[in-house]
Amino acid sequence: MLEELKEEVYRANMDLVRYGLVIFTWGNVSAIDRHEGLVVIKPSGVEYEVMKVSDMIVVDLEGNVVEGDLKPSSDTPTHLELYKAFSSIGAVVHTHSTYATAWARAGKSIPVLGTTQADYFYGDVPCTRSMTEEEIKGDYERETGVVIVETFDNRNPLHVPGVLVKNHGPFSWGKDANEAVHNSVVLEQIAKMDQITFQVNPETDMNSHLVEKHFNRKHGVNAYYGQR
Amino acid sequence: MLEELKEEVYRANMDLVRYGLVIFTWGNVSAIDRHEGLVVIKPSGVEYEVMKVSDMIVVDLEGNVVEGDLKPSSDTPTHLELYKAFSSIGAVVHTHSTYATAWARAGKSIPVLGTTQADYFYGDVPCTRSMTEEEIKGDYERETGVVIVETFDNRNPLHVPGVLVKNHGPFSWGKDANEAVHNSVVLEQIAKMDQITFQVNPETDMNSHLVEKHFNRKHGVNAYYGQR
Amino acid sequence: MLEELKEEVYRANMDLVRYGLVIFTWGNVSAIDRHEGLVVIKPSGVEYEVMKVSDMIVVDLEGNVVEGDLKPSSDTPTHLELYKAFSSIGAVVHTHSTYATAWARAGKSIPVLGTTQADYFYGDVPCTRSMTEEEIKGDYERETGVVIVETFDNRNPLHVPGVLVKNHGPFSWGKDANEAVHNSVVLEQIAKMDQITFQVNPETDMNSHLVEKHFNRKHGVNAYYGQR
Amino acid sequence: MLEELKEEVYRANMDLVRYGLVIFTWGNVSAIDRHEGLVVIKPSGVEYEVMKVSDMIVVDLEGNVVEGDLKPSSDTPTHLELYKAFSSIGAVVHTHSTYATAWARAGKSIPVLGTTQADYFYGDVPCTRSMTEEEIKGDYERETGVVIVETFDNRNPLHVPGVLVKNHGPFSWGKDANEAVHNSVVLEQIAKMDQITFQVNPETDMNSHLVEKHFNRKHGVNAYYGQR
Repeated sequence: MLEELKEEVYRANMDLVRYGLVIFTWGNVSAIDRHEGLVVIKPSGVEYEVMKVSDMIVVDLEGNVVEGDLKPSSDTPTHLELYKAFSSIGAVVHTHSTYATAWARAGKSIPVLGTTQADYFYGDVPCTRSMTEEEIKGDYERETGVVIVETFDNRNPLHVPGVLVKNHGPFSWGKDANEAVHNSVVLEQIAKMDQITFQVNPETDMNSHLVEKHFNRKHGVNAYYGQR
Repeated sequence: MLEELKEEVYRANMDLVRYGLVIFTWGNVSAIDRHEGLVVIKPSGVEYEVMKVSDMIVVDLEGNVVEGDLKPSSDTPTHLELYKAFSSIGAVVHTHSTYATAWARAGKSIPVLGTTQADYFYGDVPCTRSMTEEEIKGDYERETGVVIVETFDNRNPLHVPGVLVKNHGPFSWGKDANEAVHNSVVLEQIAKMDQITFQVNPETDMNSHLVEKHFNRKHGVNAYYGQR
Repeated sequence: MLEELKEEVYRANMDLVRYGLVIFTWGNVSAIDRHEGLVVIKPSGVEYEVMKVSDMIVVDLEGNVVEGDLKPSSDTPTHLELYKAFSSIGAVVHTHSTYATAWARAGKSIPVLGTTQADYFYGDVPCTRSMTEEEIKGDYERETGVVIVETFDNRNPLHVPGVLVKNHGPFSWGKDANEAVHNSVVLEQIAKMDQITFQVNPETDMNSHLVEKHFNRKHGVNAYYGQR
Repeated sequence: MLEELKEEVYRANMDLVRYGLVIFTWGNVSAIDRHEGLVVIKPSGVEYEVMKVSDMIVVDLEGNVVEGDLKPSSDTPTHLELYKAFSSIGAVVHTHSTYATAWARAGKSIPVLGTTQADYFYGDVPCTRSMTEEEIKGDYERETGVVIVETFDNRNPLHVPGVLVKNHGPFSWGKDANEAVHNSVVLEQIAKMDQITFQVNPETDMNSHLVEKHFNRKHGVNAYYGQR
């Protein structure tokens, strides 16, 4: 079942390695079939070199395994929480990519300082609050998703397609697995650029009109970037 | 038409990927045929892996498409403004390369601190002023070119073959596409070196006689570097 | 003798190069056969490109060469000291990997600031004290091991599978050579992340409940990460 | 003539690219035949991809071309000055490698903070003083060599096989071309490590007994590192 989606999720997981965002088993991608209400996700702790398309796990939105011989990623409940709260997203990516993870450890949102960020993120990439002892000792992975959703409050998740989980690392998403991976690459790149930027000038900032211009020329109703 | 120039522009665009200056579609190269008054430029938002020589677009200096099925780069009006103002240049390159873009986000010119820079840039690499709300909401990409030209004022663009557009990223140029790409590699490298240099010693500077010596041994009337 | 262990130690040494932790001859891996009381270790100063499985040296716990035509790594006495003091470990790795070595030169322990570290290290990665003139002029390599063991005091070496030797570099270990190499990759990665983290926010810290949660979901009695 | 030395110098030049120390034409290696009093050096400004063994130039110690159709490296007079002053060296390397060049731009010597440096350099890697207007406008490349020699004063050049030329970049040397390239790799690596080290702890230092121990276990009369 969902063979096409499994293929897409498999390839997206392998792309994380290709883009240098993941070493060992430190990442996972899932995608949802909204019509069936089913999610395809990477198995837990399986090495990328030996992983196959047929290892992808199908779970329902309550986390029950519907198909697959292996255990799904331990982060599955976080992914499911995001699918339930953000109805417009089709895929979720989690990595421990170096610079985005460093910002998450620092507990700081990544401020928008350039058009590279504004081309994809309509503002800062937010960092969640610290999780409480109760959340950590409770249903931890699900609570991680709850804290992400709380952080987004009124924001459109497709306008800010990523987040930093404090002391943990980045999650990103998109309309499909390919776009979610694309956004995880962008997130790592802007995390790196911003760290360097602040070394050069800790006082810099960016005009909000320029943020608006760049986001809208790619994503607004009158977008004119690309071949559309 | 202009088959040789298309080939040159195509190869220069691919070189940006090879030199690690561009991921996804974050860069573009153009070159001008001064005799015909026509510019060859990369199409907008096309992936490098699938791009072909025949995808290159020919535009006139007013930005009208003269040949090509695709839309030209959304940055085309910036390139055209540079060709109009800088009559000695034959090609323009734009990237979001990591370190040069970080300096642009920081809003800081890259000071000349070593011979690596002086071999190509006769002084600092300037950063433009912030663009105004009117410029951003108006003919934005053309205004970007106007602000670059304003920044150069009385300087010879072949003596300082690059610029940082504030909160955006670097543009570079040269006599032909190959030289323009070469200068974009140099610009990224000196942006990286200067960031590290200031970490080691924020108070350092460079003797202007040494700048002059190195620029002129490569580019002066009595140049003696290389096989000429 | 110990052909399987030699193969394992050889491959682990080559992996250090593959993971970018070692240039030239700047690293070594050993593994112990606890039943035989024998250690297999890399020869001293042999280039990785020409090294063969049969070049691996077998020594006893007093450092006597039991098999092999070459001299064992000059760091052999350090490895032996660790095997004697830490009875649960099966392999030891030493590298001069860039970021971990920089923290060692800085004389600073690597604080736990994120789950990437807590997934493998149950707390900070400690840095040893400076060695004394007597230790350096005496049986230096053995004393290096003694200082590491002193640093661990009451800690379980499998809960903190690595250390920084001040002004020198990292040592790591594990149940077998593969795990010890894995931990040396993790150690380099968290050293890099922490350096960047402190650039972004020198005041950051991490909730100890989150450290406990992540270490135990991988290594505790009720571990649920991976396919077990 | 000197076919073996030409082959060695050619390979050493190509190794600079392989080790990531050189882009474009930003580096050069030479080696001397002390018996003949002749030096083999890379031609000026020739791309590495097209360079051949037969392009290597033979010059005498006064800089006269003895064999070769191309112009020798513009840095040839610097190399010759080092061969004249340092009778124990057999080869010289110059690069603009990123971190070593950044320290040169910063005008700072690289302090010895770890055993990675002490294994090759018996102390700091010195940085030259600024060159005067007269030196720069005069016989510039020869004067660069004179300033390096002045910086070394009473030091043994094989005990400190490299230097930073202020606002320029590193030169290194060794008994032969292979060792000189090896030392240029070490110099770049310790420049990188020290920059990171000072970010982590600006107050760190290193015990001189440890420097002595490490230098001598590799290079002293009772050296025991490696297979000798």
